[in-house]
Amino acid sequence: MSDLESLEPTFDDIEDAAERLDGVAIRTPLIESAELNARTNGRILLKAECLQRTGSFKFRGAYNTISQLTADERKNGVLAWSSGNHAQGVAAAAGLLNAPATIVMPSDAPTIKIENTKHLGAEVVLYDRYTESREEIGTALAEERGMTIVRPYDDVRIIAGQGTAGLEIDEQCQDLGTEPDALLVNCGGGGLTAGCSIALTEVNPAIEIYCVEPAGFDDHARSLAQGDRVENSMDERSICDALLAPKPGEITFAINRHLLSGGLTVTDEEVKAAVRFAFQHLKLVVEPGGAASLAAILAGKIDCKGRTVCAILTGGNVTNETFSKILSET
Amino acid sequence: MSDLESLEPTFDDIEDAAERLDGVAIRTPLIESAELNARTNGRILLKAECLQRTGSFKFRGAYNTISQLTADERKNGVLAWSSGNHAQGVAAAAGLLNAPATIVMPSDAPTIKIENTKHLGAEVVLYDRYTESREEIGTALAEERGMTIVRPYDDVRIIAGQGTAGLEIDEQCQDLGTEPDALLVNCGGGGLTAGCSIALTEVNPAIEIYCVEPAGFDDHARSLAQGDRVENSMDERSICDALLAPKPGEITFAINRHLLSGGLTVTDEEVKAAVRFAFQHLKLVVEPGGAASLAAILAGKIDCKGRTVCAILTGGNVTNETFSKILSET
Repeated sequence: MSDLESLEPTFDDIEDAAERLDGVAIRTPLIESAELNARTNGRILLKAECLQRTGSFKFRGAYNTISQLTADERKNGVLAWSSGNHAQGVAAAAGLLNAPATIVMPSDAPTIKIENTKHLGAEVVLYDRYTESREEIGTALAEERGMTIVRPYDDVRIIAGQGTAGLEIDEQCQDLGTEPDALLVNCGGGGLTAGCSIALTEVNPAIEIYCVEPAGFDDHARSLAQGDRVENSMDERSICDALLAPKPGEITFAINRHLLSGGLTVTDEEVKAAVRFAFQHLKLVVEPGGAASLAAILAGKIDCKGRTVCAILTGGNVTNETFSKILSET
Repeated sequence: MSDLESLEPTFDDIEDAAERLDGVAIRTPLIESAELNARTNGRILLKAECLQRTGSFKFRGAYNTISQLTADERKNGVLAWSSGNHAQGVAAAAGLLNAPATIVMPSDAPTIKIENTKHLGAEVVLYDRYTESREEIGTALAEERGMTIVRPYDDVRIIAGQGTAGLEIDEQCQDLGTEPDALLVNCGGGGLTAGCSIALTEVNPAIEIYCVEPAGFDDHARSLAQGDRVENSMDERSICDALLAPKPGEITFAINRHLLSGGLTVTDEEVKAAVRFAFQHLKLVVEPGGAASLAAILAGKIDCKGRTVCAILTGGNVTNETFSKILSET
């Protein structure tokens, strides 16, 4: 427990982040569907972070981080690397806080994410996801430009910001008079998972928390089973562009190894079925990586019968073309 | 004013409806988008009734009506005619209240609406929208079967139920510390418009309320201008299948002629652009008829500059094919 007690961010850090985000981030709704409850024989509550500012939860951590920089740091600007959702979160937060932003993005990121990032006022630098290191490119560029790096997940301020989604889930469950038995979180680098785990286990120590990853990118599931961080092969492909981090973060894994019950894995086909379900029954636009937890629920990878299970729909940034293609594959 | 004071439903009727719907209908979120505010130079608040049970506001009125029937009436069942959203609302409400339901639907209604209505347990009877009268078919069938007719809009219980969306808009605006200058409501028969007008003018008499209709189906706009109910030619076609009622309802128009500031009209192209905007920026699935008010805002048909303008996204029941087709037309 002494190890656990020394974990950062703390619950208080997350509450402080919630104060910074108050009136800036959207308090996204916790959505319930009669159809989904009927299919699972449980009570499923979906935190619709696709409705968050910039279309994903990433705005929370980005704003929490950049708002804590000094006036000089902000003036010199921020730099981030991201497949797209963190990029937009950083660009929007930087814009609100009058900081210039440079974003290093993979050249195969969805065009909507690249375009939106530019539209939010950031400069975009592209790299090849399969041959180049975004950390190396980003670190060199940040040094050259005197910019502060806003990491996608391995930073206590980022984790605290993402954890505010967990605080809201707890409050919204209380409003409904329920306490969740389990939480499912789509997982790339593990920042949202770590933040929400700290937020929810503080108030509800018995909650089971699972990260959900695409097949071939199940580094967290394997790392949790092994007790140590292992990498993805990166030879794999997945439709979940938001969940392709190479391995768990150092800080995030130090938290997640203590607080998670395990990791679930979903296939591209299961993810696409979940995107279609969200379209047809929830009337929400959810991107593939945003639908992984819903996919795990629909595919029966967690027992929901008689239980209250929360899941986070983490993002909705998907191109017309990809979305239409997924809808057509019925 | 004596004429106005005798209008039914009353504000109290709407509050009673809200009590009946408490815990059954979804309290849908009032959504704000930084992008939409920036485009309009105003504050736009969108009531997301596409997230309502059955994917449209229609569940409100249907449940409010059927829950007030006697045990015998419920046992004998209910009958409704509808292009699809009222059908699903009645089917779902009847199912929850253990009443058999028969629904008369146009044969060219979106297949998703017909399928969902059947899935909700109702019997569906099809008719030809352009050669047959749904009222005649439905009335004869209801008499034959001893069923109670649940009208789509021209009934005080229906209007009171739909008005609960207006009550929520008021409460949610208060939570945000704002008072709307204007409300835009997508309008078919005028039930939602009438209910929300009663709810909102009671608390905010200065509010401007506009109904929004598809070009060619602007019976309300013309009726309001003329001071008397006029019909649509019904030779027209529109992508807004939910908004094709032949003329304003008798009860709804008696209310709307007193409380509305006027009617706005939108083209199919403007509606499709709004559906795409909702997909890209709001991450919401909005059906064409559900996007008419947003279309009016985006097309500049109402001045939003420096004002708080509310609009209701009335539904999200659209087929994969139609949605994909609209997305592809960029």
